[in-house]
Amino acid sequence: MSLLRRDQSGPHLTITLDDPQRRNALSADMVAEIDAALDDSRARGFASLTIAGANGIFSAGADLKSLSAGLAQSPASGEADPLRDQNRAAGQFFARLNAHPAPTIAVVDGAAVGGGMGLACCADIVIATQRARFALAETSLGIPPAQIAPYLVARLGERHTRRLALTGARIDGREAAAIGLADFYCDTDDERDATLASLLKQIGRCAPGANAATKRLIQACRDGATPAYIEDAARSFASCLRGPEGREGVAAFIEKRAPNWAERKS
Amino acid sequence: MSLLRRDQSGPHLTITLDDPQRRNALSADMVAEIDAALDDSRARGFASLTIAGANGIFSAGADLKSLSAGLAQSPASGEADPLRDQNRAAGQFFARLNAHPAPTIAVVDGAAVGGGMGLACCADIVIATQRARFALAETSLGIPPAQIAPYLVARLGERHTRRLALTGARIDGREAAAIGLADFYCDTDDERDATLASLLKQIGRCAPGANAATKRLIQACRDGATPAYIEDAARSFASCLRGPEGREGVAAFIEKRAPNWAERKS
Amino acid sequence: MSLLRRDQSGPHLTITLDDPQRRNALSADMVAEIDAALDDSRARGFASLTIAGANGIFSAGADLKSLSAGLAQSPASGEADPLRDQNRAAGQFFARLNAHPAPTIAVVDGAAVGGGMGLACCADIVIATQRARFALAETSLGIPPAQIAPYLVARLGERHTRRLALTGARIDGREAAAIGLADFYCDTDDERDATLASLLKQIGRCAPGANAATKRLIQACRDGATPAYIEDAARSFASCLRGPEGREGVAAFIEKRAPNWAERKS
Repeated sequence: MSLLRRDQSGPHLTITLDDPQRRNALSADMVAEIDAALDDSRARGFASLTIAGANGIFSAGADLKSLSAGLAQSPASGEADPLRDQNRAAGQFFARLNAHPAPTIAVVDGAAVGGGMGLACCADIVIATQRARFALAETSLGIPPAQIAPYLVARLGERHTRRLALTGARIDGREAAAIGLADFYCDTDDERDATLASLLKQIGRCAPGANAATKRLIQACRDGATPAYIEDAARSFASCLRGPEGREGVAAFIEKRAPNWAERKS
Repeated sequence: MSLLRRDQSGPHLTITLDDPQRRNALSADMVAEIDAALDDSRARGFASLTIAGANGIFSAGADLKSLSAGLAQSPASGEADPLRDQNRAAGQFFARLNAHPAPTIAVVDGAAVGGGMGLACCADIVIATQRARFALAETSLGIPPAQIAPYLVARLGERHTRRLALTGARIDGREAAAIGLADFYCDTDDERDATLASLLKQIGRCAPGANAATKRLIQACRDGATPAYIEDAARSFASCLRGPEGREGVAAFIEKRAPNWAERKS
Repeated sequence: MSLLRRDQSGPHLTITLDDPQRRNALSADMVAEIDAALDDSRARGFASLTIAGANGIFSAGADLKSLSAGLAQSPASGEADPLRDQNRAAGQFFARLNAHPAPTIAVVDGAAVGGGMGLACCADIVIATQRARFALAETSLGIPPAQIAPYLVARLGERHTRRLALTGARIDGREAAAIGLADFYCDTDDERDATLASLLKQIGRCAPGANAATKRLIQACRDGATPAYIEDAARSFASCLRGPEGREGVAAFIEKRAPNWAERKS
């Protein structure tokens, strides 16, 4: 029994977290299934990856029963702590999702709590609905939102991250859009579906290889336009331009036609 | 005669700058008193620290008469410049305030100019009222907002910081909330008090040690989720989870009760 | 025939891109002329530099015909790739503009596409009108917005940069102001002119040397208030304060008069 549904529509892949018993928590099994979907998306060159949640929930975040079980056993001195290993593995998973080469969209149509909110923040674009509920509940449980902090800061800035993490405040979809946690707020299911369809159409016009290079560069330019960044950027630019996508894109522009990647049905 | 009033309410500490003659400026004496309050807050483990200003002012920033007196004396060649030493000390003070382990709230209910605006930006949460007035007046005096720039950028981003610092524009509480300089705008005293009370209640539900770890991690993740950050985060997470707060927090969640730190009256 | 008009008004310089045939593209010739204007602005100590576009366009960005011509010739193995050299040179140009010591204002009163949008993001302040149109069209041409990414991230944050770059979404002036791409949205020409005049008046009250120091420090504090930054800031602060601007500014403040730089007609 899979915890994840996969749906393909033209060049676009959607994965839907579906583990009602654990409220779509990021259990080890769930993470393994998302990872497999990421690998598949990368191998088959999907143009985008959309992440949604079934059962009226996006994701409840960490699997608390598993943490509680881990607490019952203390590692012997000198032994690795399984809770620390588990948290490090979660951090490496978020980093892989954040670096996924295709554009990613999170459709938050229910609760996104703790690591579930972190999951949304790893996406390039976030859509929130009237059913969305976000909260960084970690500190009310006595633990820090440790592995997701980098993605919260990248999306929200230090300011909102500090406030939300230190107060555990709950916010709805409308407030999420107001503070930039969501890019779009949708009042109805129709609006949500139309917003997603429009984004997929826009992404379909962009070259997949150029989008992958762009995602990498946006994260590489964190220290500003240093000489090393400028050189990296020039190499990446020339490589894309001289590759099949750049040649086709520039030719299509001059010939006033759509480039070949935009012909794919979406 | 103290330049600072201290008020305690349950686990929450409030300090009120009260130096009418210098408009609550960050004079050496004022900084020493705030530092003493920070030390006390840390030693006694307050759950939060609120900073306010008396006399209808938040803080006028640098003590200009002291700068003027310093200008009257030029250091001999090879001697340390007292103005430079004084500015470095101010920078170290802002860094201490910014790194204070407990959540900090600035209630800006009057003018917050130059270093006074920097003081507010070092807080985790800023409340602005209809009496709030902000301005980076430094460059109109021929000097840069040097030591506060990092906190302005962390709160406002580079964009607003550049604009406000290079124009000296004055903005009110409503505009401050619109550009993210304030998290909350309050039209009336009642609204201000209710907003603060609600924040303190939320903070009271969060574990103090987890909040301290969270503040540190949010600042440590500036370079993104590097392998070193992921390791640091995993160590901090496991240490909080295996400590008394994590054990209590997870147990309370599973037993559907409030954790012991949330029982403290606030 | 120049591709650039220069207009001086008191201490303020305006350059207007005027190359109708290439839609004010950042051709090698255009970049050379902007660079010459930057050098002149620096040498003559203008208080501000405003960048506008003629012909109802801000700038179309990269010169696509020149890229297409470059594509027709492949460099021999071991030879430098002229397309890469050209892109590196563009990156170095954007870095020079971003680091220009005087405050810069972009008045976007038409299309600002790709590198043209990057040009606007290098400015300290952006004014957008009802005719403004922004788009990161690069990935729809098969290439990444490589050299402008650092300036997009500095202005828009990672979140909006990812979305706009990966979708190629077109946005108007009102949306640009809503997401922080523009600081001001102006509905009419009168409003645009009044906004610009008000900004120039504010900048005129700020000391030029202090503004230059401020621009440098805002970019130097990217890693936060490290000990090295605090030292750099203290040195810069003391140097400005002991220089002619600081002495004049503090004296003027205490004597309740305008400082001498503010007397210049603007």
